[in-house]
Amino acid sequence: MPAPAHTATTRPGLFGPDNLPYGLFSTADEPGARRIGVRFGDAVLDAGAAARAFRSPHARLLTAPDLNPLLAAGRPVWRAVRAALRDWLGSPGHRATVAPLLLPLDTVTLHLPFRVADYVDFYASEHHATNVGRILRPDAAALTPNWKHLPIGYHGRAGTVVVSGTPVVRPRGQGRPGTGSDRPAFGPTRRLDIEAEVGFVVGTPSEPGRPVPQTAFRDHVFGVCLLNDWSARDIQAWEYVPLGPFLGKSFATSVSPWITPLDALDAARVAPPERDHPLLPYLDDEGLEPGGLDLRLTVRINGHPVSEPPFATMYWTAAQQLAHLTVNGARLRTGDLFASGTVSGPEPGQRGSLLELTWGGRDPLTLPDGTSRAFLEDGDEVTISAWAPGPSAGSRIGLGEVTGRVAPAH
Amino acid sequence: MPAPAHTATTRPGLFGPDNLPYGLFSTADEPGARRIGVRFGDAVLDAGAAARAFRSPHARLLTAPDLNPLLAAGRPVWRAVRAALRDWLGSPGHRATVAPLLLPLDTVTLHLPFRVADYVDFYASEHHATNVGRILRPDAAALTPNWKHLPIGYHGRAGTVVVSGTPVVRPRGQGRPGTGSDRPAFGPTRRLDIEAEVGFVVGTPSEPGRPVPQTAFRDHVFGVCLLNDWSARDIQAWEYVPLGPFLGKSFATSVSPWITPLDALDAARVAPPERDHPLLPYLDDEGLEPGGLDLRLTVRINGHPVSEPPFATMYWTAAQQLAHLTVNGARLRTGDLFASGTVSGPEPGQRGSLLELTWGGRDPLTLPDGTSRAFLEDGDEVTISAWAPGPSAGSRIGLGEVTGRVAPAH
Repeated sequence: MPAPAHTATTRPGLFGPDNLPYGLFSTADEPGARRIGVRFGDAVLDAGAAARAFRSPHARLLTAPDLNPLLAAGRPVWRAVRAALRDWLGSPGHRATVAPLLLPLDTVTLHLPFRVADYVDFYASEHHATNVGRILRPDAAALTPNWKHLPIGYHGRAGTVVVSGTPVVRPRGQGRPGTGSDRPAFGPTRRLDIEAEVGFVVGTPSEPGRPVPQTAFRDHVFGVCLLNDWSARDIQAWEYVPLGPFLGKSFATSVSPWITPLDALDAARVAPPERDHPLLPYLDDEGLEPGGLDLRLTVRINGHPVSEPPFATMYWTAAQQLAHLTVNGARLRTGDLFASGTVSGPEPGQRGSLLELTWGGRDPLTLPDGTSRAFLEDGDEVTISAWAPGPSAGSRIGLGEVTGRVAPAH
Repeated sequence: MPAPAHTATTRPGLFGPDNLPYGLFSTADEPGARRIGVRFGDAVLDAGAAARAFRSPHARLLTAPDLNPLLAAGRPVWRAVRAALRDWLGSPGHRATVAPLLLPLDTVTLHLPFRVADYVDFYASEHHATNVGRILRPDAAALTPNWKHLPIGYHGRAGTVVVSGTPVVRPRGQGRPGTGSDRPAFGPTRRLDIEAEVGFVVGTPSEPGRPVPQTAFRDHVFGVCLLNDWSARDIQAWEYVPLGPFLGKSFATSVSPWITPLDALDAARVAPPERDHPLLPYLDDEGLEPGGLDLRLTVRINGHPVSEPPFATMYWTAAQQLAHLTVNGARLRTGDLFASGTVSGPEPGQRGSLLELTWGGRDPLTLPDGTSRAFLEDGDEVTISAWAPGPSAGSRIGLGEVTGRVAPAH
């Protein structure tokens, strides 16, 4: 492909022509108008304006007020639009047309890029599930008997998925009764936590009653974002038996503003870890395209790196999750979002939650500013960022970041 | 209020002028056009056409392609529209205008009347939770320690909420490994069940971070429907520890086509059962409007009544559920649907699931046609209907029915 047009505002780096993630932005002079943008370096291409300028057959999709029409259009259209973007941004002959449509990133406001249909959260890291089992259920086996046979998941609240930067108000709720009491505790959570995750965004819907096999993963899944599954551990611990997490999670789930197309992550594909239990045919991925992704996450608290979770260590792949999610016939809708579950690697510095990093609060983290954290304090800002290997030697694909600051309980 | 206009096609009965539930219909000559209808006797009033004929200020809401704009309009508008409908249907002077807008019920097709935002399912019957605990966890206390302190709930799949009449395809999935095996079973569920429930439809959204108190229940909740939370017990039993029900529920949830406004159920309000544990202030309903509803459900299999669950016996009220759902700051959206959980009364003939009616399959039901059922067979049709006391002595408000037939696994 041609070399990209470097302008004063574009230093591709993590966001070069091999990446081209999609988002939704508005500008200060038209705050009510939401426009589809494509990140290029430190700039945002006004994709709708570009589509009109180049008389794209896909201008209707790119001038929509969110990504949903593009998501619904299906993989052949996703590929055609991506090829057009690479042409518009990469051909020297287009430079004069494109330059005025590239807005500096720091002049725009980013919004939740798509309307979330259903939100599902999985639990796909063996290291995370093992750590959590040991911390919360020390008298039982770390992994439940089903864990190696199916990707465990549950539905979360789609209506509280928010874009990166949205403040996270500390939730109130019930916790376990204190020793000697039979009345539950109540108040702002004292164990506010994060979960560093990767989210997958469904574009193409599926038919009710028809499972989606792993081989159809790329036909249905448009792209990838970063996700912080904020968790109130004291609320969760009291409520979750027998029907699972509810208010301990449903107050907020933050996602990164940029959706990286799957096609940008071909060079990041890796084999998942060796499986030590045989899998049922619908989950077996022997001989299929490698389902893992080599995404390198970093978690920062108030700017200080506290963990580097490696997504390549996830036991269950996104294609397996999609196959499981639909094996009972549940249909997919455009805008469905499913997340990996907390990404934790085998090393202590690779854990994706404070619950694990501080071992249930027992071993607080000391930050370089001299403060320590068992769980999050009001005013703390948590940022999860990630990159993946790109197609040329040493190149990187940026997934951007998802950030949020804790606001005091109302 | 004036007497209703009785025409050849209107025999109010359960659907008289004190009921007036809303639905969405299409006709054979315009199958693609979805119109808001109001049930009146055995007829459906084309509400949009009536609004235009009477130059209603709410014609925009009533000519929408679903109920969401009306739901979002808020309680003062709900009341004004209801008053107008009673006038249009009840004033002899309007008879000539209204008669051609009343379509026989059996000539229209009914559709899912609103776009479901988030779907939450509670677990609010003490009798149900106790039965399930005894059947599934015979070695543990029937109720978990949290049960009397909070209404337990979880998020379900909004994208598989379907309207009454939609066939329910038997789901496939994993079940527990058989004795002596360490490989899960896989195939069409052998324990397909129902759960007879009542659903509450949210109209007015709430602000993120702001709990909705019980006293604001009527400002946010528009009305009531019947709901069948189809359940695959073998799938559910294998998957649900530790994160709750997932594929055992997500294949289908059926709702009745008619949404009965809360205002139609004033005469059905009753005090909930005595609470034997003190409640936190946000759940305490001492001195508030009675939060229970005297809805009499009937469950039929292939036309044979098998149970009569009394909704008045539910331990947790819908207002408490709403307060709990939002106490952590989770916002409400128009179209949010929350369901009561299985309605089971204290008597064996009042249980709302086959799991309970057959005690885990141990005591199959014998139907009058001579066949017996532990769980559902292909071709079985399950219908849940309900009525409530109306405002005048002996009058009844019909909630219609939710029905579905089991189709074989694909």
